[in-house]
Amino acid sequence: MGSATIFFWLQLPNVTKSYRTALTITGIVTLIATYHYIRIFNSWSEAFVVASKDGGDYEVKLTGAPFNDGYRYVDWLLTVPLLLIELILVMKLPQEETVSLSWKLGLASALMVALGYPGEIQEDLSVRWFWWCLSMIPFCYVVFTLAVGLAESTSKQPSPAAASLVSAARYLTVLSWCTYPFVYMVKSVGLAGPAATMYEQVGYSIADVMAKAVFGVLIWAIASEKSAVEESGKLLPN
Amino acid sequence: MGSATIFFWLQLPNVTKSYRTALTITGIVTLIATYHYIRIFNSWSEAFVVASKDGGDYEVKLTGAPFNDGYRYVDWLLTVPLLLIELILVMKLPQEETVSLSWKLGLASALMVALGYPGEIQEDLSVRWFWWCLSMIPFCYVVFTLAVGLAESTSKQPSPAAASLVSAARYLTVLSWCTYPFVYMVKSVGLAGPAATMYEQVGYSIADVMAKAVFGVLIWAIASEKSAVEESGKLLPN
Repeated sequence: MGSATIFFWLQLPNVTKSYRTALTITGIVTLIATYHYIRIFNSWSEAFVVASKDGGDYEVKLTGAPFNDGYRYVDWLLTVPLLLIELILVMKLPQEETVSLSWKLGLASALMVALGYPGEIQEDLSVRWFWWCLSMIPFCYVVFTLAVGLAESTSKQPSPAAASLVSAARYLTVLSWCTYPFVYMVKSVGLAGPAATMYEQVGYSIADVMAKAVFGVLIWAIASEKSAVEESGKLLPN
Repeated sequence: MGSATIFFWLQLPNVTKSYRTALTITGIVTLIATYHYIRIFNSWSEAFVVASKDGGDYEVKLTGAPFNDGYRYVDWLLTVPLLLIELILVMKLPQEETVSLSWKLGLASALMVALGYPGEIQEDLSVRWFWWCLSMIPFCYVVFTLAVGLAESTSKQPSPAAASLVSAARYLTVLSWCTYPFVYMVKSVGLAGPAATMYEQVGYSIADVMAKAVFGVLIWAIASEKSAVEESGKLLPN
């Protein structure tokens, strides 16, 4: 995540001014994730201790300190709206549409994260499902807007390469996002204990790398391609 | 707060020279806040310990180390005058007015913070109210100047978009500032113990994000809009 940040920011001079805000925000998303993954790492290390008794097999034990998964939700509350805004900015829609889409998708996605948290920290399965269902309402709205609502704007991109990259970014968002509700369900279907916690952490971490770093590389590729198209346009004799 | 700092500073080349000082200070405010929030985080972690005995329910206990809320007041003493100065700078008033307003609002707001602290660290409710009242005198002066005194200058902004953004920044300041005296009152109305401390910390933190990071985004939007207006003005044939 930290390396992705440095890559995006070092690429800033290589894109035209129109795409620098999008690329700046792309780097901020992975920076915020870097910070929270360090906090998650520390919290994990404080919650579990691995040791062997008398040189025998290693055992994992609880230290008594809690593993705080709240860091993920604070991270998502900040990064998920920013991720959607970076996609909207790189599409370079008319200004009015940019502002209204940023507000709508930004607020809906923040609401989605906020509604997920009360269920995540519950042991009671029916309460977990209740918050999962509530959170899925803004989730479906955002995914539907990305998959269907932005299809027309995609076709207006300045080159076929740019259009297919924007399509890829939209579908990567939809696919990587769909991972989260399934990982959330790991504990809701009755799995519990260390194995469930491990599947959940591995699942969320893979989804985060796809949705932030890999998605960010696509945003950079779109910004590069569109910058090249704009610059070659300026050099034409007409 | 840290991400906001980086965003503002990476945007420096995208605004004209007239607005770079305002944008630099905007980033300094969120940087100072980043530093103090790390200190607050560490002080909080040292004051409370969360642990479960024998794998049972988690309990929060006092460690005996004090939670030092003084960091907030040192932060505000530095950032609050700077926040007002960044707003005055981005308005691009005549130089004389800029200097005199910066002194008046800067000193009044520093006095407001300094008068609040003796009450904040008091248990005695009547002493808390005494300092609250004293602190409200410079508070009212600053809020009145922002709400009424700057109305005329707002109408002189170079484009309707810039004028409405400046209005939004002035009102966000007034609204987010009004949160602080109410949060301060949480303990003055007799609430005490862990719940009161938690409400106070959550309240101050939300107000800080609004008054520093979100307000900073508005300052950047004003600087961008006015830079675009100035640059398009230069390209006109007349």
